[in-house]
Amino acid sequence: MCRWLAYAGTPILLDTILYKPAHSLIDQSMHSRLGVETTNGDGFGVGWYAPDIDVPAVFRDTGPAWSNRNLREIADHIRSPLFFAHIRATTGTAVQQTNCHPFRHGRWMWMHNGAITDFHRSKRELAVAVDPDLFPDIEGSTDSELMFFLALTFGLEQDPPGAVARMAGLVEQTGRRHGVEFPLQMTVAVTDGQRLWAFRYSSQTDSRSLFFSTRVETLRALHPDVEFLREVSDETRVIVSEPPGDLPGAWNEVPESSYGIVQPGGDELLPFTPQFG
Amino acid sequence: MCRWLAYAGTPILLDTILYKPAHSLIDQSMHSRLGVETTNGDGFGVGWYAPDIDVPAVFRDTGPAWSNRNLREIADHIRSPLFFAHIRATTGTAVQQTNCHPFRHGRWMWMHNGAITDFHRSKRELAVAVDPDLFPDIEGSTDSELMFFLALTFGLEQDPPGAVARMAGLVEQTGRRHGVEFPLQMTVAVTDGQRLWAFRYSSQTDSRSLFFSTRVETLRALHPDVEFLREVSDETRVIVSEPPGDLPGAWNEVPESSYGIVQPGGDELLPFTPQFG
Amino acid sequence: MCRWLAYAGTPILLDTILYKPAHSLIDQSMHSRLGVETTNGDGFGVGWYAPDIDVPAVFRDTGPAWSNRNLREIADHIRSPLFFAHIRATTGTAVQQTNCHPFRHGRWMWMHNGAITDFHRSKRELAVAVDPDLFPDIEGSTDSELMFFLALTFGLEQDPPGAVARMAGLVEQTGRRHGVEFPLQMTVAVTDGQRLWAFRYSSQTDSRSLFFSTRVETLRALHPDVEFLREVSDETRVIVSEPPGDLPGAWNEVPESSYGIVQPGGDELLPFTPQFG
Amino acid sequence: MCRWLAYAGTPILLDTILYKPAHSLIDQSMHSRLGVETTNGDGFGVGWYAPDIDVPAVFRDTGPAWSNRNLREIADHIRSPLFFAHIRATTGTAVQQTNCHPFRHGRWMWMHNGAITDFHRSKRELAVAVDPDLFPDIEGSTDSELMFFLALTFGLEQDPPGAVARMAGLVEQTGRRHGVEFPLQMTVAVTDGQRLWAFRYSSQTDSRSLFFSTRVETLRALHPDVEFLREVSDETRVIVSEPPGDLPGAWNEVPESSYGIVQPGGDELLPFTPQFG
Repeated sequence: MCRWLAYAGTPILLDTILYKPAHSLIDQSMHSRLGVETTNGDGFGVGWYAPDIDVPAVFRDTGPAWSNRNLREIADHIRSPLFFAHIRATTGTAVQQTNCHPFRHGRWMWMHNGAITDFHRSKRELAVAVDPDLFPDIEGSTDSELMFFLALTFGLEQDPPGAVARMAGLVEQTGRRHGVEFPLQMTVAVTDGQRLWAFRYSSQTDSRSLFFSTRVETLRALHPDVEFLREVSDETRVIVSEPPGDLPGAWNEVPESSYGIVQPGGDELLPFTPQFG
Repeated sequence: MCRWLAYAGTPILLDTILYKPAHSLIDQSMHSRLGVETTNGDGFGVGWYAPDIDVPAVFRDTGPAWSNRNLREIADHIRSPLFFAHIRATTGTAVQQTNCHPFRHGRWMWMHNGAITDFHRSKRELAVAVDPDLFPDIEGSTDSELMFFLALTFGLEQDPPGAVARMAGLVEQTGRRHGVEFPLQMTVAVTDGQRLWAFRYSSQTDSRSLFFSTRVETLRALHPDVEFLREVSDETRVIVSEPPGDLPGAWNEVPESSYGIVQPGGDELLPFTPQFG
Repeated sequence: MCRWLAYAGTPILLDTILYKPAHSLIDQSMHSRLGVETTNGDGFGVGWYAPDIDVPAVFRDTGPAWSNRNLREIADHIRSPLFFAHIRATTGTAVQQTNCHPFRHGRWMWMHNGAITDFHRSKRELAVAVDPDLFPDIEGSTDSELMFFLALTFGLEQDPPGAVARMAGLVEQTGRRHGVEFPLQMTVAVTDGQRLWAFRYSSQTDSRSLFFSTRVETLRALHPDVEFLREVSDETRVIVSEPPGDLPGAWNEVPESSYGIVQPGGDELLPFTPQFG
Repeated sequence: MCRWLAYAGTPILLDTILYKPAHSLIDQSMHSRLGVETTNGDGFGVGWYAPDIDVPAVFRDTGPAWSNRNLREIADHIRSPLFFAHIRATTGTAVQQTNCHPFRHGRWMWMHNGAITDFHRSKRELAVAVDPDLFPDIEGSTDSELMFFLALTFGLEQDPPGAVARMAGLVEQTGRRHGVEFPLQMTVAVTDGQRLWAFRYSSQTDSRSLFFSTRVETLRALHPDVEFLREVSDETRVIVSEPPGDLPGAWNEVPESSYGIVQPGGDELLPFTPQFG
């Protein structure tokens, strides 16, 4: 039950997106407008790709993002062509670094807003479904990390949309077997450093908000005076739980039960359906 | 720019007051109603007196109170006849333990809601006014701690209202000399473990809210069914920035420019005026 | 790979045992003598029973014990007839509150020094053996917490020595099935607030050190000038990984493969053998 | 009472120097050999210059460096031509971010190993000597930060060696006036992002250790197989409290009462004498 942001495009200082806009993600950590929880002060994380290094860096800490000086330093000094940022509001699991997003496995990163409903009931069955070779690497206690490990188990590195669909299917099946009517609520971002997938789905067809930025060339025509738009490539894209800034025409809602792919050569928007085993 | 609570009376579990009431202080850390800042997530503290030990215990930490498990443990297991609790929203100074309230000196505790306006301008002059023997004990960087050290310098241990009046006078004089129209905004609680003084004052005569609980015997007559009221002595008193609970008739506003004394034998409410050196 | 201390007897300030002695547990956090790791700075915890409350308080934090001011405050102000203290040196699992000892379940507390060898190999099988109703309550990622949950699964609340023996048996069987020659190394303390059990065992018969204090009446005769000994009851007992203080005759090694029971009416020392399912 | 490292030369991953060598700085945080304190677990910091940004980034945190995952991430992903790293062992002042080195002012960074003896006695006088415009920016409570502010007051940005000499002179004069025989013990590194100054001095002529790396071309001839040496420029230089690695001929002690300048065009080594006002 969180907020997140994913950026892919021309390398920029993280600050440009994380702090500079009005109602930025860091502002949202204290005062969100669209969320169920208006305060997201239970930890945060940023993950970014650095030049010539496959494995992304992940910086996560447990206090609120709004007062974290190290996050401010990183945002002011690091440029990246692809980064994730996440602010957390826990619904009960411990506030600890290993429960903060993004999660990482090799060169893959994952972050999530939402919840497995009544996670307590399904947790053991879902944990047991994780690939035994991966199981010992689970470090935290969240539903979000477990969803990532299930997706990895189901082939995330070969077929991201398929693996996420199988993960969602298992979560729904398992929840329903335990009497949970609407087991899954999620917006998820996942990347391998080249492409970025963003999913919006919930069992109840009432998913947490998710937005993608309008094509840069369209925005540039609408707002010729905005410097940032002149500096980034046409292929630059931002995906967010809740729009920062106040640029008219900049944000479009990701439709219910769908997912987008941000990739070189043209983005895509496709329907998403859980897949049952 | 914070919220605080002071309790004096029959020894109770801290939990009774800190967590149990609707809209408790810990709830207020996430969602305050009356404050300038609605989120108070930049550290917190509790200070309490234990049997047969003059010096109070002070437990302070830097994250939000709402998710702190150690605070929950302490509140569930410690009984005290006199305790302070404080939740902090910084307006810029560092989020660190030494900036968290309550502050302690020997058997004295101090906590504050408010600010010295444009503290940056007056800070050095005020620091220089601190008793040279006390100066090296300043550990943090807040206006609140400095106000405490000034009050100690001006005789807090002998004459609390007089020392606070002289501190307030110096803060106002110094601020005005630096062109600050309304230099001081404060509600302050201070105690030596026996008596408790609570001050409400601001240069602008527009002070942060402060409330004291109605006499227990009156409340008991109004609410004969409330168990807590049957268990505490007639002399029990609570002072708060913002009322917890929803008991009609329970809370009374401390008047502008005044201070109260909670003490054995009868409480008092008196006018407060800064005193100029 | 840690150090711990368990106290049962006349209620004392935690400080008396945790800080006051030469080479106290808190000193050991920076400079241990007997341990494999000489620095135990990866988190710590204390757990204590308060009057009239069945569930013990547990205060745990992630930094070093030696510099933790809140621990110092607690030790200076809290008296308890039965408390645990633990300092941690991680061998790889995350430094986080949920990995700090003591662990608690209802009115039971558990702490551990040692390791499940090559835990990574056995972790999943051991986790799956935990009672499904308990499984979702696992919060951390350590072998120590999992050992506690296994002991709970095997009847810790009914028969502590039997449950610990079955846990140890399962750990050894599982480890050996994965090719681990010496799967278990442990000293464990467990209590329900009335009695206290302390185990010393390792697959290799080369267990981490463990000591119990000499009977108070004997010590009192040897050291008539030691004030502390005059103040505590004959039944007071301390069990430690590494002796604090420098009182000749005060400490006795717990024999290999054995366990002690500290209880009203007379302590016991018995052999310990893992039990295979 | 700490350990530090300063690097200037060909941009490298921080990891190359901070973690990779045997007995690296991060190893030293747990097990130092040369220091008065063998454990340096009371906070740490790294500061680095990023391309095209004058102001260095400063990442500081309060736990031990050895277990800090964010430091590991930064070291693995950030390249810099000039960086500082520091591990702290407090002698009493609070363990908090604002007491961690390096300290920063504009594009200047400062770090220190040593102490002002009996700092408590001199603190107020030294604080009062700080430029009133700078005074409000003091955030922590250490002697090290105050030394930095005094050096800034005395013209650090115009004449670093002169400003440090005047700072040292004031510290000695003030200490001696308070009856301190040997008021100052210091190794200090300071940089503006272009040049780097390193000082070794103590009132007692018994200064903490300080070493500088041998010229790269000499080392390269001695150790033609060491890959790192082939990759860095001839002008690359490292200065450390305690040598990491085990390369024969790699380290030279900075003489007592002297300072070095690392700069484009040729380094210098000069005598250092405090200057009295």
